[in-house]
Amino acid sequence: MVAARARIAPYVTPTPLRHYPALDEALGARVLVKHENHLPTNAFKARNAMSFMTALPADQRTRGVVAATRGNHGAGLAWAGAQLGVPVVICVPHGNNPEKNAAIRGHGAELIEAGRDYDEAVEVALRLVRERGLVMAHSTNDATVIAGAATLSAELFEQARELDAVVVAVGGGSQAVGALAAARHLRPGVAVYGVQAAAASAIHDSWHAKERRTVASANTFADGLATRATYDLTWPALRDGLAGFVTVTEAELAAAVRLLIRTTHNLAEGAGAAGVAGVATLGDTLAGKTVAVILSGSNIDAETLRRVVSNEL
Amino acid sequence: MVAARARIAPYVTPTPLRHYPALDEALGARVLVKHENHLPTNAFKARNAMSFMTALPADQRTRGVVAATRGNHGAGLAWAGAQLGVPVVICVPHGNNPEKNAAIRGHGAELIEAGRDYDEAVEVALRLVRERGLVMAHSTNDATVIAGAATLSAELFEQARELDAVVVAVGGGSQAVGALAAARHLRPGVAVYGVQAAAASAIHDSWHAKERRTVASANTFADGLATRATYDLTWPALRDGLAGFVTVTEAELAAAVRLLIRTTHNLAEGAGAAGVAGVATLGDTLAGKTVAVILSGSNIDAETLRRVVSNEL
Repeated sequence: MVAARARIAPYVTPTPLRHYPALDEALGARVLVKHENHLPTNAFKARNAMSFMTALPADQRTRGVVAATRGNHGAGLAWAGAQLGVPVVICVPHGNNPEKNAAIRGHGAELIEAGRDYDEAVEVALRLVRERGLVMAHSTNDATVIAGAATLSAELFEQARELDAVVVAVGGGSQAVGALAAARHLRPGVAVYGVQAAAASAIHDSWHAKERRTVASANTFADGLATRATYDLTWPALRDGLAGFVTVTEAELAAAVRLLIRTTHNLAEGAGAAGVAGVATLGDTLAGKTVAVILSGSNIDAETLRRVVSNEL
Repeated sequence: MVAARARIAPYVTPTPLRHYPALDEALGARVLVKHENHLPTNAFKARNAMSFMTALPADQRTRGVVAATRGNHGAGLAWAGAQLGVPVVICVPHGNNPEKNAAIRGHGAELIEAGRDYDEAVEVALRLVRERGLVMAHSTNDATVIAGAATLSAELFEQARELDAVVVAVGGGSQAVGALAAARHLRPGVAVYGVQAAAASAIHDSWHAKERRTVASANTFADGLATRATYDLTWPALRDGLAGFVTVTEAELAAAVRLLIRTTHNLAEGAGAAGVAGVATLGDTLAGKTVAVILSGSNIDAETLRRVVSNEL
């Protein structure tokens, strides 16, 4: 984590931690918002990608990096590659969100649209590893990626003098495992809670069952949370470290996006609002406490935003 | 301007200047976006307010500051006052936007709702100057306020190696006059263009007539642009310095907010999107050039945002 901070420091300016009394009032706790939406690519994944990319040996940087993704991980890698001069290929499934594709291409990456879904895009990426010698960048299951995510919590703990808890969205788990690692080193008294979408609750279900489970679908508008299984590298830390784990409905996620817009006037994507939705769900557990949430990204597409602000979600 | 930068430096972190190829494509120019929406209070007015407040002598800081405002100027002063321990009283008319009132109160300022409109709120503020000895902070007609706004352009000119033009929204004119002053000192080759709402076009009309004019109404959803007259301290510089001056309709402002959301995934209020609307309107004048716009603020209220993203505006 310390090494990752030093590696990414030239490229990632610390993000602000801000306090909005109107948000406190709505949630019944003192809530601090970590503005990862201010980063390049508007998402904390910029940290993960830069941590991964700067840790690569020179020969791997020359060969280039490939990943399968539907969004922020790909934009993060494309941005990091552009900063470092590393070629990046991003594989997305056919029909992937055009705003996300535009952002990935905007940073100069090669975008390959192939396969019917994420799993088929992974197959395409793996073929490119074999054929072109590219290095695969997994969005979660990589120690340097998780170290990148931990830098955000390390910053947060330095910024927040008083802090009782952090409520963290869990997609693959890099953010939460990063928070747990940072808390262990820097602020062992801080409780870390996990939040998943009820529509994509594999890791939540596993945590409560104390054994790894999968779910059949991950149909949430919060695409950063759309996972169906646990991951080898994050599951043990989540199982052992989280103080609690809740799910939130699609309506609760949408309400949290609206609440962030109204009280902070920052855009949030579904996963970026999950912390706020989690604080609301945790209710009495956090009442009156000082709680940090991570506005992890703002890359909501225009049509989803329209549905959210029109109360159609 | 140099003095203002030094004064505000401990409180105002430089904001990023970013490039979005999808925005270029929509506008036919290479467009750089200055993210003033990342500042505390989500608006460049934080610079103006902090520049004003740090320039006050100690006895005036003790007495406190008062202003009449409907939005970002008040939030900026409230924030700056909270940082420096200066008491702040903000006068808003009855029925002022509750989200803006909440933001002002959130920074600990005293909020007085009185009067039927902005002009009556000014009367209330002036009475407090007489009765309580508070110092009046005008949103535009003050040299330290304008110097605060100039710090944003000074930063911008340092960040943009290549730059042909800046397209700046004109409400009272502090942003544009700040850009002109910074350009004169740092980048004399850069052309500065002004943009007003067609529904609040007093300064635009004055510029084309080469004499000061007022308009009867200022009925634009971009409340940061809702002025009906020129100001003594900004008019001469605008008259002599701007390379051009255009107006944009409410529909064009709304389209620019939508374009910024779709291509940058940042929220913008009407005035914050005026630069983008201006680039679109200037069309051939800027085609193929490198142009900076200032995303000056993101404090759009929830209902206005709903109307914008639903194409009702």
